Amino acid sequence: MSRQAKPGNKPQAWTESAPLLVDVAMGRSHADLVVRNGRLVSVYSGEIIAGIDIAIVAGRFAFVGHGAEHCIGPKTKVIDAGGRYLVPGLCDAHMHVESGMVTVTEFTRAVIPHGTTSMFIDPHEIANVLGLEGVRLMHDEALAMPINVHVQMPSCVPSAPGLENAGASISPADVAEAMTWPNIVGLGEVMNFPGVANNDPTMRGGIDATVKAGKTVGGHFASPELGRAFHGYVAGGPEDDHEGTRMEDAIARVRQGMRAMLRLGSAWYDVASQIKAVTEQGLDPRNFILCTDDSHSGTLVNDGHMDRVVRHAIAQGLKPVTAIQMATLNTAQHFRMEREIGSITPGRLADFLIVSDLANLTIDRVYGRGVLLAEKGKLAAEIPAYNYPAFAKNTIKLGKKLNAKDFDIKAPKPTKHVTARVIGVIENQAPTKALEAELSVSDGIVQMDRRNDVCQIALVERHRGTGAVVNGFVSGFGYTLDCAMASTVAHDSHHMIVVGTNKDDMAKAANRLGEVGGGVVLFSKGRELALVEMPIAGLMSDQRAEVVAAKADKLVNAMRAMGCSLNNAYMQHSLLALVVIPELRISDVGIIDVRTFEKVDLFL
Amino acid sequence: MSRQAKPGNKPQAWTESAPLLVDVAMGRSHADLVVRNGRLVSVYSGEIIAGIDIAIVAGRFAFVGHGAEHCIGPKTKVIDAGGRYLVPGLCDAHMHVESGMVTVTEFTRAVIPHGTTSMFIDPHEIANVLGLEGVRLMHDEALAMPINVHVQMPSCVPSAPGLENAGASISPADVAEAMTWPNIVGLGEVMNFPGVANNDPTMRGGIDATVKAGKTVGGHFASPELGRAFHGYVAGGPEDDHEGTRMEDAIARVRQGMRAMLRLGSAWYDVASQIKAVTEQGLDPRNFILCTDDSHSGTLVNDGHMDRVVRHAIAQGLKPVTAIQMATLNTAQHFRMEREIGSITPGRLADFLIVSDLANLTIDRVYGRGVLLAEKGKLAAEIPAYNYPAFAKNTIKLGKKLNAKDFDIKAPKPTKHVTARVIGVIENQAPTKALEAELSVSDGIVQMDRRNDVCQIALVERHRGTGAVVNGFVSGFGYTLDCAMASTVAHDSHHMIVVGTNKDDMAKAANRLGEVGGGVVLFSKGRELALVEMPIAGLMSDQRAEVVAAKADKLVNAMRAMGCSLNNAYMQHSLLALVVIPELRISDVGIIDVRTFEKVDLFL
Repeated sequence: MSRQAKPGNKPQAWTESAPLLVDVAMGRSHADLVVRNGRLVSVYSGEIIAGIDIAIVAGRFAFVGHGAEHCIGPKTKVIDAGGRYLVPGLCDAHMHVESGMVTVTEFTRAVIPHGTTSMFIDPHEIANVLGLEGVRLMHDEALAMPINVHVQMPSCVPSAPGLENAGASISPADVAEAMTWPNIVGLGEVMNFPGVANNDPTMRGGIDATVKAGKTVGGHFASPELGRAFHGYVAGGPEDDHEGTRMEDAIARVRQGMRAMLRLGSAWYDVASQIKAVTEQGLDPRNFILCTDDSHSGTLVNDGHMDRVVRHAIAQGLKPVTAIQMATLNTAQHFRMEREIGSITPGRLADFLIVSDLANLTIDRVYGRGVLLAEKGKLAAEIPAYNYPAFAKNTIKLGKKLNAKDFDIKAPKPTKHVTARVIGVIENQAPTKALEAELSVSDGIVQMDRRNDVCQIALVERHRGTGAVVNGFVSGFGYTLDCAMASTVAHDSHHMIVVGTNKDDMAKAANRLGEVGGGVVLFSKGRELALVEMPIAGLMSDQRAEVVAAKADKLVNAMRAMGCSLNNAYMQHSLLALVVIPELRISDVGIIDVRTFEKVDLFL
Repeated sequence: MSRQAKPGNKPQAWTESAPLLVDVAMGRSHADLVVRNGRLVSVYSGEIIAGIDIAIVAGRFAFVGHGAEHCIGPKTKVIDAGGRYLVPGLCDAHMHVESGMVTVTEFTRAVIPHGTTSMFIDPHEIANVLGLEGVRLMHDEALAMPINVHVQMPSCVPSAPGLENAGASISPADVAEAMTWPNIVGLGEVMNFPGVANNDPTMRGGIDATVKAGKTVGGHFASPELGRAFHGYVAGGPEDDHEGTRMEDAIARVRQGMRAMLRLGSAWYDVASQIKAVTEQGLDPRNFILCTDDSHSGTLVNDGHMDRVVRHAIAQGLKPVTAIQMATLNTAQHFRMEREIGSITPGRLADFLIVSDLANLTIDRVYGRGVLLAEKGKLAAEIPAYNYPAFAKNTIKLGKKLNAKDFDIKAPKPTKHVTARVIGVIENQAPTKALEAELSVSDGIVQMDRRNDVCQIALVERHRGTGAVVNGFVSGFGYTLDCAMASTVAHDSHHMIVVGTNKDDMAKAANRLGEVGGGVVLFSKGRELALVEMPIAGLMSDQRAEVVAAKADKLVNAMRAMGCSLNNAYMQHSLLALVVIPELRISDVGIIDVRTFEKVDLFL
């Protein structure tokens, strides 16, 4: 009879196990597992201490010190660390599982070998499709994991009320409800920063419900401005921010009593510049935290997760123990969870890594709740797939079969030429440019201009089956051949974005996603070149991360074959409906000028 | 109409005031108070930043930054800091108000000029007299203060079940009840460390109730031992410890994920040795916290409070900002209150000091909740006396008038000489020695031996009016004249301890305390030489700290005149019933050998 926790079964509360932990520490009971002769990375003292033994029972640390012989019984598994480092399991302080295009389970499978044993996830994307019910699905899936996956309640759904209609909305009452769930640790990134600075009732309601529940309010101040609006935002209550990009951003946030979250995601490189606040300016590192925010499947499979971030932080000149604190104790304290996670000390969950090289963070083994979960980069635990209910896999509601005519853009008046607004994609940046183009008109229909890289974009309503299509123009992808790409990942409202040089392909791509329940697909001349199915809310695959990464690779290659040489072109595609970032966007409401937060005419 | 908080009126919750705070930060509303041109001691970033303005409204910081012109309106009070330092109000992380022999109100009046704006008090003494009801009284008094006085629920009442009968006891159900009160921040020092390591149900029940309430479990591991029992104690849950005295004690605690609380009290000097863990061994200072534990009125009046501790810590070689963190942010985080206190950042209570010299911590002004409370060492606020109910002032129940015969010690058999156990007082130490003495017998009554400094000690039952007196012998005070001193401060059960060379004086001293409701009194040859009345629970005066300090001085001088040259003789007197510290003690149960935790015969 092992008292060891099974993967997915969270150990008993510390108070329940305390008598047993005390008995093991005193030598009156035996540990499940003893690891001997490690170099403890003590995140509390900031030291590295040789010759340490740790004893684990019921999924928690019972003893950490010199000499755990007295904790060893006939059934105790004993491991010799051979002088290797014992490092607390790594925490990702803010991230979106949906960015990996896989489920929580698959994300978990992918990150465990990289040493991540705690994630703070914000299921903002599914909330835009399925609302509170969608959050609950991921919340419940998270509870079934063998590592600690805690949920931040999405705060800004829809992101831009009035400028878009998402599949659902989140009210302050929803936030208050979620705060009573067992696995909610706080409010997810409060992105509507002008709303906070203007005392918007929805923003205030969500923040207040979170504070009253004693939980952490996540911030998201996506502006380089550090003047009055920044101070108004801080006074409103957000406790952290991961949107800083410059050293002065990090300094400003910490001085205001916020925690600076420095992110290294698939497309975010915000650690190196901001960490200089510590390595060059000498700020106290305790209020700096590392996170990923968004990781694609390919990054998880090929590059890593929090191990990559910690390694990168060390490479910027942080002492290894300081970098590790930023991914362990600092995070745990921020979420008021230091009694559960973030250190190798008595009573805490036995999440730890055996590391053979500290500066390179070479992870030999990963333990979660006292159970071996990964060894030498390979998952060692069975983590069964999590089944989503049918309603979560049936979210693409087009209301009709689309055809090429749905993408016809009529000229506003009988003419040969029109001047149209064009959404200009900027490589490697989230903002777009508000461009203009002279386009010819044929039979009353405005024509694309492939030579000048102006093709069509359509926002296809997909939440309520209205059959509505909003059409517009986009430039920057560089498609030179007949093709169309459609995606139901379309931040933040997650309608369907179709970009194409050919309306027949646009219709085919859109209809195909309707058939498979969402995802991303590329058509050319009626032929499907690549498809990544994402049947869960139209956002996530139910397949393995490696499979999704391979399919995504195929998609990127197919886009290139169509003439699109843009870096991260799929990401750019999925952001074109993000009506909170300037300058020009498309939504189900129409063409939106995000400089003025107004709907504008397609034609000038 | 001022929105400024009145002393004693706690500002609205941060969530209630947030819209106003945001409005002030944005310049849409005006601050109550703006302090300009300060050097901000930023405990979050660890920096000192020149040219900072702070704007305060509704008792909280609304804006902290460069240039608060936009927060100033016609009714805003504006102060020029003239480049002086702005320091967060100081926090005392663990202390007993009763040690000052004054009420919470008087203690508060005494410490405010010293920069203390938050205290974490453990009303352990009154709990031993009046139980949960006594804790509630001090809890409610604390709520009426113009600074933050938070209460730790006493955990070990009585301290030694079976070896003494206190006036009351505290059960796990009492702890759970207290956790629902508005001003309880955690469990007070869990002193029964063998109990924790042995899974004693009362200790476990109290700890578990605290953890379940999400509050902080205070520790108290009063042993130099760092082996198995220490590890068992840590696994049991206490989160801090102020009983360490050596550098290795502090290191051991922090490595185990506890916070090392370093104390400088009237009689505790534990900072200098332990702070070397930071200044010499380089440990991360974030888990070190400063406190006083016990301060006499004289210390408060003459030497200071937390200002004295911070100054002392700086003198040991800490950077000023690091020492200040140990009395502000570190404390706030430990008690999960960093959103309320411990820093000068938006949203927090506007508790701050204007300091003209940082290394010497010269405090020019003290603000609490945005209100000027002290200036140049003088209290500037009205703090009305707090009225205790009659039952709290009527706790000395002797059951009869005592006379000299009550202190007769009969020889166990007809004899001329007996060998008696004698409690040996050790100067400046809490432990006693278990001595023996040959004493003569006259008319069947054992005689004192003044020449060899053996006089009598009596424990007079005072909680239930049983009229019981336990008699014994004590050595070490050095009384050379006829006299007797009685005290109802008698840790931890707080019966009455009478020590005397003359039984008539012993009876008079005891009866006198019965008349005045408790305190300390010294009689010689029927004459009262000094009296400090402490009518509240027999533990606290209802007079000013200066008055109490003057009376205590008079008492000490009178003791000296009687031949007692012992340092801190009154303290030694009050500890002789402390049946948790070796070797020999007296309690209402009898003479107790604390080496074996057994009642022993007076005679060998």
